[in-house]
Amino acid sequence: MAIRYTPEDCAQLLSAVRTQQPLVQCLTNAVATNFTANVLLALGAAPAMVDIPGEAGEFAPVASGVLVNLGTPTESQRAAMLEAAGAALKAGTPWVLDPVAVGALSVRTAAARALADLHPTIIRGNPSEIMALAGAGAGGRGVDSTDSPAAAQAAARSLAAATGAVVAVSGVQDLVFGPDGSGIGIGNGDVLLTRVTGGGCALGAVMAAFCAVTSDAVLAAAAATGAYTVAAERAARTAAGPGSFAVALLDELAAISPADVAAALRLEVLEPAPRALQQEVAR
Amino acid sequence: MAIRYTPEDCAQLLSAVRTQQPLVQCLTNAVATNFTANVLLALGAAPAMVDIPGEAGEFAPVASGVLVNLGTPTESQRAAMLEAAGAALKAGTPWVLDPVAVGALSVRTAAARALADLHPTIIRGNPSEIMALAGAGAGGRGVDSTDSPAAAQAAARSLAAATGAVVAVSGVQDLVFGPDGSGIGIGNGDVLLTRVTGGGCALGAVMAAFCAVTSDAVLAAAAATGAYTVAAERAARTAAGPGSFAVALLDELAAISPADVAAALRLEVLEPAPRALQQEVAR
Amino acid sequence: MAIRYTPEDCAQLLSAVRTQQPLVQCLTNAVATNFTANVLLALGAAPAMVDIPGEAGEFAPVASGVLVNLGTPTESQRAAMLEAAGAALKAGTPWVLDPVAVGALSVRTAAARALADLHPTIIRGNPSEIMALAGAGAGGRGVDSTDSPAAAQAAARSLAAATGAVVAVSGVQDLVFGPDGSGIGIGNGDVLLTRVTGGGCALGAVMAAFCAVTSDAVLAAAAATGAYTVAAERAARTAAGPGSFAVALLDELAAISPADVAAALRLEVLEPAPRALQQEVAR
Repeated sequence: MAIRYTPEDCAQLLSAVRTQQPLVQCLTNAVATNFTANVLLALGAAPAMVDIPGEAGEFAPVASGVLVNLGTPTESQRAAMLEAAGAALKAGTPWVLDPVAVGALSVRTAAARALADLHPTIIRGNPSEIMALAGAGAGGRGVDSTDSPAAAQAAARSLAAATGAVVAVSGVQDLVFGPDGSGIGIGNGDVLLTRVTGGGCALGAVMAAFCAVTSDAVLAAAAATGAYTVAAERAARTAAGPGSFAVALLDELAAISPADVAAALRLEVLEPAPRALQQEVAR
Repeated sequence: MAIRYTPEDCAQLLSAVRTQQPLVQCLTNAVATNFTANVLLALGAAPAMVDIPGEAGEFAPVASGVLVNLGTPTESQRAAMLEAAGAALKAGTPWVLDPVAVGALSVRTAAARALADLHPTIIRGNPSEIMALAGAGAGGRGVDSTDSPAAAQAAARSLAAATGAVVAVSGVQDLVFGPDGSGIGIGNGDVLLTRVTGGGCALGAVMAAFCAVTSDAVLAAAAATGAYTVAAERAARTAAGPGSFAVALLDELAAISPADVAAALRLEVLEPAPRALQQEVAR
Repeated sequence: MAIRYTPEDCAQLLSAVRTQQPLVQCLTNAVATNFTANVLLALGAAPAMVDIPGEAGEFAPVASGVLVNLGTPTESQRAAMLEAAGAALKAGTPWVLDPVAVGALSVRTAAARALADLHPTIIRGNPSEIMALAGAGAGGRGVDSTDSPAAAQAAARSLAAATGAVVAVSGVQDLVFGPDGSGIGIGNGDVLLTRVTGGGCALGAVMAAFCAVTSDAVLAAAAATGAYTVAAERAARTAAGPGSFAVALLDELAAISPADVAAALRLEVLEPAPRALQQEVAR
């Protein structure tokens, strides 16, 4: 059942992003907004941080992709997020939901549930966030995940099936699941990504950019993760610490070629676990 | 008619900024606020991000210059912007309006028009933004400009004449027009400036700093652009990509001497186009 | 009366922060939020920027420490700050108040006074801010301090005695005063720290992290200042300017060992000035 994707498929999407320069509307948190915009610019996409009521819904049909990230969701931003997601859904603009710290905090948990009903193309989070949104697990420790990627697999698969969204889970191996049961693991990246604030948040924006150049959202999520984490691996080679790593990551996102991505990407097709194991894991 | 300025005039203003350390109040967007403050500090000015109602108007008379940037204009910020601009006008504090993405988005377009009535000292934008504010063109693609600097020349000149503000237009050649018909082109800079978020927004703050040390706002806009883009050229020489470029730009803004600016600056006096061409361009 | 602390005591707290990875809730300004989160991550702590009403008070009992920084205090943030500080007080979570630009601006001055009544563990500011909060001096020039650390000593001591908080004053020599009259000077750091926005704001968050691993808040403030300023000294050695300094500071915060801190730290016990001199200084 699982569709097979190759590193070359992913690399080709990076070319398409560079050529088409998708306009990515970001409604994201105050901490990550600068880094997110710089990641998109470095990669060759065009960021537009349009996140106020009255404009967010106006812009989503014009945008090539939309990111909704719940990191620091003010009242005004929450209204704008519903506006943008609704307008994106109506206009057919692909959009990504990043339910930061959902489960642990009440306001954003309610917001995330309302947004999840507006048919996000991709839902991206750490294991705890995905489990909380799927109704399993108890949420994380703020933005930190306290559940392992393995434990989140079953929850991610059921969230994908229930919402129709592609579900992406970050971790040592990043995971992408389609609503059809397909699953891909991406084995690239570097631990320094966890020492830079907004490292995961920016990946959500990259996914929105890749969604703009293909209608296959599983491939978009996998290719975005691949380009981002391969660039991170290259950045880590020269970095002296988290400060220089963040700088080098931007440089590498601009410099990396599709051939670099194709050569370095470690993809794995993930077969669904037997039902019994799934239930055990999800508990 | 056009007043002639020399690179030495511009360089001298940089000295004055370093000596006087003007206090620049910034009401700016969430994406660029950190970079903007760091640009001002690197250059030798003092940033103060005072942007809430009840304080914005209280601070503008104390500030040496004010920046109002419409990048992510929350309701609270819009109220504070009117407060700050009104107080700046009353107190004689020079202030800069950066109408980010005006024309394309309704809320900020209304805000920009109201602010333009409060006699900004300088209006700074990309060609699309300047054309939109002048009532020509249809706005850009988010924060990206879809009109060329040449096409914006006539619009910029008419906006300057209509508002009494100096109008600065970014591009491969940056342009500055006075309400008296004077025009200056600055031919420095690097394409990497377009790959760093807030690259243009920070320049608006630098203009506010330069306005604080001269009553000649055409010279202030040109000198600010000159110092900033010469520093950008120097930063680009050693940069491996957009990440290291942004870091090097801050280093260069701190290191660059007035003599460096005088030696590198490429100024051009811009004569008004014949009326017929102006109309064609503006269409 | 003054308790003697050694560089080794401070170094040991850095070890504890690395081991315990305290979860630091930050309600901070838009300019410094990214750098603050990166500083905490680099050091080994876990940032959580939870600053909206309805969540701020919910999170403070879970957090290991809380930072409340008044740099750009929107109405929503001010409500969240009262919520967080109140919940922290009730739950026994240590919390740090950074009254940025208090005295000079009315809204935040009122907010700072209300917050100071909620028993912050540490109050951290520049000399002008500490003097303003203590009711001495006339506030600074925006976020810049216009009073010397020496002039602020008496005010800091009286603020500590009046509030029961530890009071930390930044400057060439950083100062920490306990409500019991104890005082410590920390003689490390580099002038480049004043050329990076959020340099002081991030230190407030580091203090919140160190408060989480000891009940001795004087030691926490001194050790946080020590680790931060020793890292800054090391970063300054290789920096070409403020841009590369900020990057290197993050690298050094991650790389620095407790032994590095112990070897480099310059602590001084500060004896209370005679009463007559105190009164003169405070005037």
